[in-house]
Amino acid sequence: MSETVGFIGLGVMGRPMAKHIAAKGHRLVVHNRSRGAVEDLQRSGALPADSAADVARQSDVVITMVPDTADVEQVLLGEGGVLTTLRRDCVVIDMSSISPVATRRLAAAVADRGSAMLDAPVSGGEIGAINATLSIMVGGPAHALARVKPILECMGPPEKIIHVGEESGSGQICKICNQMAIGGALAGVSEAMAMARKTGVDPSKVREALLGGFAASRVLEVHGERLIKGNFAPGFRARLYQKDLRLATETAAAHGVAVPSAALVSQLINALVASGGGDLDYSAMGTVLFDLAGLE
Amino acid sequence: MSETVGFIGLGVMGRPMAKHIAAKGHRLVVHNRSRGAVEDLQRSGALPADSAADVARQSDVVITMVPDTADVEQVLLGEGGVLTTLRRDCVVIDMSSISPVATRRLAAAVADRGSAMLDAPVSGGEIGAINATLSIMVGGPAHALARVKPILECMGPPEKIIHVGEESGSGQICKICNQMAIGGALAGVSEAMAMARKTGVDPSKVREALLGGFAASRVLEVHGERLIKGNFAPGFRARLYQKDLRLATETAAAHGVAVPSAALVSQLINALVASGGGDLDYSAMGTVLFDLAGLE
Repeated sequence: MSETVGFIGLGVMGRPMAKHIAAKGHRLVVHNRSRGAVEDLQRSGALPADSAADVARQSDVVITMVPDTADVEQVLLGEGGVLTTLRRDCVVIDMSSISPVATRRLAAAVADRGSAMLDAPVSGGEIGAINATLSIMVGGPAHALARVKPILECMGPPEKIIHVGEESGSGQICKICNQMAIGGALAGVSEAMAMARKTGVDPSKVREALLGGFAASRVLEVHGERLIKGNFAPGFRARLYQKDLRLATETAAAHGVAVPSAALVSQLINALVASGGGDLDYSAMGTVLFDLAGLE
Repeated sequence: MSETVGFIGLGVMGRPMAKHIAAKGHRLVVHNRSRGAVEDLQRSGALPADSAADVARQSDVVITMVPDTADVEQVLLGEGGVLTTLRRDCVVIDMSSISPVATRRLAAAVADRGSAMLDAPVSGGEIGAINATLSIMVGGPAHALARVKPILECMGPPEKIIHVGEESGSGQICKICNQMAIGGALAGVSEAMAMARKTGVDPSKVREALLGGFAASRVLEVHGERLIKGNFAPGFRARLYQKDLRLATETAAAHGVAVPSAALVSQLINALVASGGGDLDYSAMGTVLFDLAGLE
């Protein structure tokens, strides 16, 4: 018998993700702070719930997709939260991108209630959510993942659902690694584009040459083009990437890992947001070094 | 009628490159400081020359492939150098990776002698040289490139020979951009691998997850694996990459371009070389942050 899925957090990412779950025929109960998104999901066949607790009361699997660590803590542990009503032998899947350290505490609280928690942050952005092509990085017990895999496969293809480790927080660590790898690549590409512009060399020729060699990357392909065209419509907003980099540097500090490049990228994003670019695509980071768009 | 090609500098890169030119049936005259490589090329049908001047006297197209800016200056402008005997209407192709600023001065000197100079640094390393799969980034006049294209195509496929710009030095700028883009990506990947190790997450799972998403890059694919396995047999030696990053930061300073990431990567490579790793593959840079290999 199919399990009832609860979904809490119907934002830019959560709304299309929840719709895919409903579309695959799962019984879906949803909750969101603002009502508009809930009504939209009702038209896709989902049942509305008044609170996180109301979701958990009716669900076998509860998915959370909210902005930050404090939001997940509130939704799980707060008044009217998931843990006030969660039954035994359920699975909580937090698909938000939050602190791995906090995640371990939350997973312990869920385990105390006789259920399991998975951390399963995603990569691929709004487009990935809409097209159900998200990469999903999963931390937590393999038996829980095996049970919910058909639900995750509503949002991402099987080959992109990676069980990173049994340890709670492994998925969040992997997501941080992802954002750090992207950040380093973006810094390098931004400087390459700035160097080309400032020395009078055609940046699109540089991009073309570099894509044929060892510098080839998705970041060069997509963000290189954004930097050349000065097209910074999001995409993924700088202020959200700022949060991810804060998680990266905080987690590095907590574990004593040296991350000088992530620290640098974090400062460049801070500069972009501080100068009013928080709602631009995060690839606009390059404009802090050099006003690339202004030279078109 | 086929032109005579002169080749100066038969090192790790130059030797296989010159062999490919001979193998395609070009008349080839070679010179190198040490004799062993010259004798090796003679067995491939090349004619030996006693000096750079002796090469230039017999050649229509002169290729230089030497370690650094000062070496190219010496080979072209020094005593017994190319410019002492270079005829009119020849083409000098410098395939070394050197300063774009110095390149412009050298090109002007070649032009004063009634010949043209192209800067055509390569990417792809020893393997690319051996397999004739180099990326070649060309700066300088299009007519000169059109004339020597069949010679360049002995060393790299046509689609990887990019005419970056008419301006002398454009190829060198592009090569610098290439090394900066790689450096940023490598820093990000190094920190991701260090974060995974230090937090007890399997770095190979992280690499696998990241390769499926937006963080995908050749650097993650190849150097990510090197960092996981602790395999730093070169490849491309750290001390040569150190030189490339010095060119990047010096060129940035000369043109007033901000390159904080390249400056950081440059310092990490300095630390690797200073701690005795100059002959390791440059991907060992990650070990400065965290002794990845030691945890195997």
